[in-house]
Amino acid sequence: MSKGTFITIEGGEGAGKTTLIRSLAAELQAKGQSVLTTREPGGIPIAERIRSVILDKAHTSMDARTEALLYAAARRQHLVEKVVPALEAGQWVICDRFIDSSLAYQGYARGLGIEEVRGINRYAIGEWMPDATLWLDLPPELGLARIAASSEREVNRLDLEAESFHRRVREGYRLLFEQEPRRIFRLDASLTPDSIRDEAMRVLWPRQQESLGSMSNF
Amino acid sequence: MSKGTFITIEGGEGAGKTTLIRSLAAELQAKGQSVLTTREPGGIPIAERIRSVILDKAHTSMDARTEALLYAAARRQHLVEKVVPALEAGQWVICDRFIDSSLAYQGYARGLGIEEVRGINRYAIGEWMPDATLWLDLPPELGLARIAASSEREVNRLDLEAESFHRRVREGYRLLFEQEPRRIFRLDASLTPDSIRDEAMRVLWPRQQESLGSMSNF
Repeated sequence: MSKGTFITIEGGEGAGKTTLIRSLAAELQAKGQSVLTTREPGGIPIAERIRSVILDKAHTSMDARTEALLYAAARRQHLVEKVVPALEAGQWVICDRFIDSSLAYQGYARGLGIEEVRGINRYAIGEWMPDATLWLDLPPELGLARIAASSEREVNRLDLEAESFHRRVREGYRLLFEQEPRRIFRLDASLTPDSIRDEAMRVLWPRQQESLGSMSNF
Repeated sequence: MSKGTFITIEGGEGAGKTTLIRSLAAELQAKGQSVLTTREPGGIPIAERIRSVILDKAHTSMDARTEALLYAAARRQHLVEKVVPALEAGQWVICDRFIDSSLAYQGYARGLGIEEVRGINRYAIGEWMPDATLWLDLPPELGLARIAASSEREVNRLDLEAESFHRRVREGYRLLFEQEPRRIFRLDASLTPDSIRDEAMRVLWPRQQESLGSMSNF
């Protein structure tokens, strides 16, 4: 049984995941918690190698299922080598994107099927499903406008998809949220960063108290 | 609907798969058939890249599920790029090892679970299950003795596993054979190469006649 708490942050492009992760980590650390922030492939050599196969521009003929299996493989290795040891050491782990990104992007928006992509990801994740997932929900036109206005990060391949694709991604997240309301929490990403952080802490912090409670019952 | 026939050859180390594949291809060609023989990753660049990640000796920390997902990904790409086009062109495709190797070696002998490994492989294979699978069954001590006596191929990593491992591989194949007796055919690999080839043709050739029959009904 893990002593730590596994949190994943999800949402479309420009929803503010990076900003939220930074502020959450600072808030938790200010409360004396030990926090690891990460995102796949996260410097894990095997996961980095797999990711480089996926992203190699020479691989234009990569089949969609091959890609989904490779994402799941990189996920597994990052999880086993980086996330699980931190959880077992009692840390909070905040991961930028996880299974729900595969379900919303590949499973739903690209049409591979949520249930099929869930099957291989369940295999990859095993017993290590996130304790809680924060979904930063934002109309895609707002997210894309933020990215266009920002100098902080470069426009990437996903940003350039048609807006209809980003709308399907948001629909995918909404479906997942409806399927798993006890794990996935929707945050209104059009609010200010401070409001979003406070709302996120209202969701997460009681989990720490519960977990302390269950430990004292032990 | 495919016009070709998809055959996979399975068995432990030293069972004679390579020899059977050569003689079957020759026999089918002599009957005027067009034949592609292949084995994963089969010169398909993406599959080769994935295989090189699996086999990289620096990757001693690779998790067993990561490895199973990578094998499934390489299988998918080789299938889509090489096997399916040949089947759609009406060829026979004879593939050296396929899903049953993953089930017998990773799923059963290494203990990952046949059903779990089958799940990700079903995803990788989709509708393209083999029409028939020939299992070359041989007591592992005979297979390993053949390899030791042969100058034709070098001893590899799998050959060096304990004999108990190879016995579990054989048990795994037997379980698969019992589960799918209509797809998997057991051949006694202790017979002479000519007898094995003749037995294999007795299994395979009527499929061609059936397929011609169903075409004439069409």
